[in-house]
Amino acid sequence: MVREYKAVFFDAFGVLKNHQGLIPGIENTFKYLEKKDIPYYVLTNDSSRSPEELSKWYQNKGLDCITTDKILSSGMLAMEFFMTKITNGNAVAFLGTKQSAHYIETAGLKTVPISEIDLDNVDHIESFAFLDDEGFDWNTDINKTINLLRKKNMTVVVANTDINYPVSKNDISVAIGGLADLVEEILGKNFIRFGKPDAQMFLLAYERALQDIQVKRNEILMVGDTLYTDIIGGNKFGLDTVLVLSGNTLPDMAKIRIGSSGIIPTYICESAVIEL
Amino acid sequence: MVREYKAVFFDAFGVLKNHQGLIPGIENTFKYLEKKDIPYYVLTNDSSRSPEELSKWYQNKGLDCITTDKILSSGMLAMEFFMTKITNGNAVAFLGTKQSAHYIETAGLKTVPISEIDLDNVDHIESFAFLDDEGFDWNTDINKTINLLRKKNMTVVVANTDINYPVSKNDISVAIGGLADLVEEILGKNFIRFGKPDAQMFLLAYERALQDIQVKRNEILMVGDTLYTDIIGGNKFGLDTVLVLSGNTLPDMAKIRIGSSGIIPTYICESAVIEL
Amino acid sequence: MVREYKAVFFDAFGVLKNHQGLIPGIENTFKYLEKKDIPYYVLTNDSSRSPEELSKWYQNKGLDCITTDKILSSGMLAMEFFMTKITNGNAVAFLGTKQSAHYIETAGLKTVPISEIDLDNVDHIESFAFLDDEGFDWNTDINKTINLLRKKNMTVVVANTDINYPVSKNDISVAIGGLADLVEEILGKNFIRFGKPDAQMFLLAYERALQDIQVKRNEILMVGDTLYTDIIGGNKFGLDTVLVLSGNTLPDMAKIRIGSSGIIPTYICESAVIEL
Amino acid sequence: MVREYKAVFFDAFGVLKNHQGLIPGIENTFKYLEKKDIPYYVLTNDSSRSPEELSKWYQNKGLDCITTDKILSSGMLAMEFFMTKITNGNAVAFLGTKQSAHYIETAGLKTVPISEIDLDNVDHIESFAFLDDEGFDWNTDINKTINLLRKKNMTVVVANTDINYPVSKNDISVAIGGLADLVEEILGKNFIRFGKPDAQMFLLAYERALQDIQVKRNEILMVGDTLYTDIIGGNKFGLDTVLVLSGNTLPDMAKIRIGSSGIIPTYICESAVIEL
Repeated sequence: MVREYKAVFFDAFGVLKNHQGLIPGIENTFKYLEKKDIPYYVLTNDSSRSPEELSKWYQNKGLDCITTDKILSSGMLAMEFFMTKITNGNAVAFLGTKQSAHYIETAGLKTVPISEIDLDNVDHIESFAFLDDEGFDWNTDINKTINLLRKKNMTVVVANTDINYPVSKNDISVAIGGLADLVEEILGKNFIRFGKPDAQMFLLAYERALQDIQVKRNEILMVGDTLYTDIIGGNKFGLDTVLVLSGNTLPDMAKIRIGSSGIIPTYICESAVIEL
Repeated sequence: MVREYKAVFFDAFGVLKNHQGLIPGIENTFKYLEKKDIPYYVLTNDSSRSPEELSKWYQNKGLDCITTDKILSSGMLAMEFFMTKITNGNAVAFLGTKQSAHYIETAGLKTVPISEIDLDNVDHIESFAFLDDEGFDWNTDINKTINLLRKKNMTVVVANTDINYPVSKNDISVAIGGLADLVEEILGKNFIRFGKPDAQMFLLAYERALQDIQVKRNEILMVGDTLYTDIIGGNKFGLDTVLVLSGNTLPDMAKIRIGSSGIIPTYICESAVIEL
Repeated sequence: MVREYKAVFFDAFGVLKNHQGLIPGIENTFKYLEKKDIPYYVLTNDSSRSPEELSKWYQNKGLDCITTDKILSSGMLAMEFFMTKITNGNAVAFLGTKQSAHYIETAGLKTVPISEIDLDNVDHIESFAFLDDEGFDWNTDINKTINLLRKKNMTVVVANTDINYPVSKNDISVAIGGLADLVEEILGKNFIRFGKPDAQMFLLAYERALQDIQVKRNEILMVGDTLYTDIIGGNKFGLDTVLVLSGNTLPDMAKIRIGSSGIIPTYICESAVIEL
Repeated sequence: MVREYKAVFFDAFGVLKNHQGLIPGIENTFKYLEKKDIPYYVLTNDSSRSPEELSKWYQNKGLDCITTDKILSSGMLAMEFFMTKITNGNAVAFLGTKQSAHYIETAGLKTVPISEIDLDNVDHIESFAFLDDEGFDWNTDINKTINLLRKKNMTVVVANTDINYPVSKNDISVAIGGLADLVEEILGKNFIRFGKPDAQMFLLAYERALQDIQVKRNEILMVGDTLYTDIIGGNKFGLDTVLVLSGNTLPDMAKIRIGSSGIIPTYICESAVIEL
């Protein structure tokens, strides 16, 4: 079916990779796309690393074709946002690893981890970013974040809408989007969230695709494993969508989930692997 | 401040008009913009009428410059969606007036009001649209909608995200977005919603602006009266925003609302009227 | 298993009756309970009729043992509330049938249907009640309710927490609790809700049981067909619970629903019918 | 006004004490009540300590009259629940301090902190309790809790419905109820929550009062500082309510909050202190 489309958007986790590494055989899919000259892009709700680092992961696994320019992440939307909104000299406070903030710093912005902030001296803090669930002490730093945001009203960005992510075959971990939900509930404030299923994520990828090729939205296929992000977001943006059963949505539950959610993919496939 | 921007986006209700008609003096604003050659667009969560009819309203009031091509409505997003998704020959069922559906029909699509549907014969119904709160019997037709959507799983579009709208100085009415929330709660399904604050609405206007002028997002000013739609949506899309106090947000509550919501406009003004 | 309990609480719809009438064979269950001298009570989220009328329905179907004193309804809680809270001479406005309000009037309280209220003369209206989804025009009267409650701040009671109810084998209807949710969402206010799973409903039945028998809570069995009302409410109140599969929870979905909801009944049975 | 009531229920934090200690002058209130022979009780959403420890705090501050039997806590409801529901020999896993679990253990129940659980050996774990926000590592133990509850379906109890609590004049901290909300959102399951505004908390206090005195519900006055717990819960249970402005609800916001919430106390007072 891929042949009928001019471009393909892929979700990353559950489609191209899982907790063990690359999905076996996925390299065939990209060989096929290269051969047919169909451009492809990876859309990921990941703000913990830069596109450079994300693409390096694929290249280390032997998938050389996933270059930096193929990666569109919710972290990029967050960085773009801060670039236009932060006054020169001011800083963005954040929850996450130093690595997750380093990416924002490459745009010339100052960042401060919440742990290093003095709550009595916050004049230079202009905005706040939820970047990664790692790199800080939850007990101390979540409460400190709450009290910073009570003390000074500022725009808050959540750079990853996911509330959890898989860490092994059976186990999951709270994602930074889940921690942001907790803080938002307690403050009763409204944060700005970037990531699928939001249209802005699909727009970012679509604008990138337009640099490579003339294409209408309904000539693009979105491949994802999650109804609530990839499929409903793709449908709404006017893409055709395929639900793959290699991740979040298990084969024996797919029909029940589609029926109960009302989110209907254009196609359903076992995986994103193309047999050559 | 308007002088510093290359284009202006206006919300309609509470900014350009209210329940009594045009906001007095608003014609000066457009005279100014025309003189300075700054293009402007009206973004409205209104799916009850076509852009043609919406622009006619302004022209009847003497604001000739609000032509059809200046109007961007959530109803247009719904129509675009159906144009790419509905199989030839199939129909869209809807709640709303005949007028609200007529707009979809101009795109060559078949529509059927829920009242005319035979629940034992729904093979040709491919999708459902919430268009307008008027034009049907709530007691009968809301329940019939629920049972149609229980009987057949289909994509449901809500063409107006607003849950209410003002009908006089003191009174409001439930909007079709509110009725859609009720149906969604009872079904436990996920509808596709078009309208501010969603990025897709701002994208529609931005793409229209690009046909007239070369402009970056942060060179555009969004003028709105509602923090939860105009301002947070504009901020997120990368626009500068001005909150006007002539509508939803009353002058004596503006600071409290901004503080408690965490939604911070770039500017605050009494109204969108420019004194010449 | 019933033998091990000193009293039994029954949900009504889906347990004792369905849209066609009494559940076939249910009379055996009550013969058994009478023989064993185990008292029983019916707990229902029904505020559309008085306990007298509710018990008459059972008696008309031949179940003479369901006398008025066996019925505990959320409407009774609403009436009790108004009896202590309404100032002499003032009135309760309501949405519902005249019949649903008649029950409140038997307590000496004045009631006014929303349709008969003059919004410019509301000094005597002290409280508002959502009683029944029938008996009024949804288009007009829901909006009028919203504007009454915007005009005058008053305590609002929802006498039935259910959001929908079955009207035939396949079809459902919005219940008054669903309409109350819509109004509450639009107003952003907090209504007082009576009905399962709330403890106050179980307390009403428990206090009634104590008039007949000495019994501790964990010596009572709650029989229900709905995890989210009967079972979680019974569990929390300290009762043992049995989920019957003759109503809301279908046999092939019971395990999935228990697993995904985390609401665990003490027992699961096909129905509440006891084979003699 | 207190003279007209046969009993008084007090909230603790914001009414009797704050982050600095006892509210100055509050001892007069209890002198007055003792003199008039009006019994009083303290209702607190606190599951971190036993009633013994809670009463000791007051006695250490010189308020000897707040004896253990005057204290009714949500932790007591949790303990009662486990006493009837846990099979002999099985254990309750928990998040909280050892102290918070010690209280459950006095009832003869086994408890295990989540940190000591082996996820491959959970047969003896029958239920889970959220008890206190302290005493564990949030990063590790919240994720471990999520994976335990994914692995084994069990009844989960939240022994404190509050989502945050004040730690100093300006700062707050996430309460265990907030952490439970996060876990519940990620799991999509339904937890059992104990604490105001739930009727079961007021029932616990009412049953205690009935041991001391013959009293109807509308002869009791509930004194609280929070509309969403003390006041709406008291109103619904049939008590008269007084909102005091010494805690959560600041004097200059009281009217706005009552208007926007629709939660209307019977009276409003500056504080619970009675001038003798």
